[in-house]
Amino acid sequence: MSQLSEFMSRARFNADGLIPAIAQDRETDEVLMLAWMDADALRRTLDTGQATYFSRSRQEQWIKGETSGNTQEVLSVRLDCDGDTVLLAVNQTGPACHTGQRSCFDNGPSVVPVEDVS
Amino acid sequence: MSQLSEFMSRARFNADGLIPAIAQDRETDEVLMLAWMDADALRRTLDTGQATYFSRSRQEQWIKGETSGNTQEVLSVRLDCDGDTVLLAVNQTGPACHTGQRSCFDNGPSVVPVEDVS
Repeated sequence: MSQLSEFMSRARFNADGLIPAIAQDRETDEVLMLAWMDADALRRTLDTGQATYFSRSRQEQWIKGETSGNTQEVLSVRLDCDGDTVLLAVNQTGPACHTGQRSCFDNGPSVVPVEDVS
Repeated sequence: MSQLSEFMSRARFNADGLIPAIAQDRETDEVLMLAWMDADALRRTLDTGQATYFSRSRQEQWIKGETSGNTQEVLSVRLDCDGDTVLLAVNQTGPACHTGQRSCFDNGPSVVPVEDVS
């Protein structure tokens, strides 16, 4: 079995045929975004080195940066221990977020937990 | 509205009432794991500062490290641009992965994409 086939056979997709993919900046280690892939998008990502995702709202594949130019060159793809999440190490051109932020987590609301002192 | 209520109102849970949560090591920036939270697990994480998830297979909440001792102290919780993913900055005690690896992505199969040269 080729390395690619073995990798694909270890990936576990959910009932909708999708797997969550975390894109992490190879240089800064920032978590840039989480998006979803179907098996074909994962295969294309591996075949082309360009992050390709599956839009749940539009029910179609999209190549990251195809319209915006803010592409994601994928340097490695890694499955977690139970094969149901993918971690991409990427070279991000421009902002990763459609809002213009570097990361999709840059502008989201954030809170600091309060430790239970009771 | 309190900061916590506002945060909770911005979180978007899927049809099963869950949101994916990425735990990132606060010190090393490693992505340690992805797990799921229901609204109550997210609220408890925020209330206690200890990462609390929801097991899809067991259909119950679990506090990270409750049995293993490998707890996750949560320093901040951040939503992404569309509110459907959570990013936790954590202080991880011991390995984050049940396999004994530091990260759930440490031992998973990985591949390097081959760029399409056609």
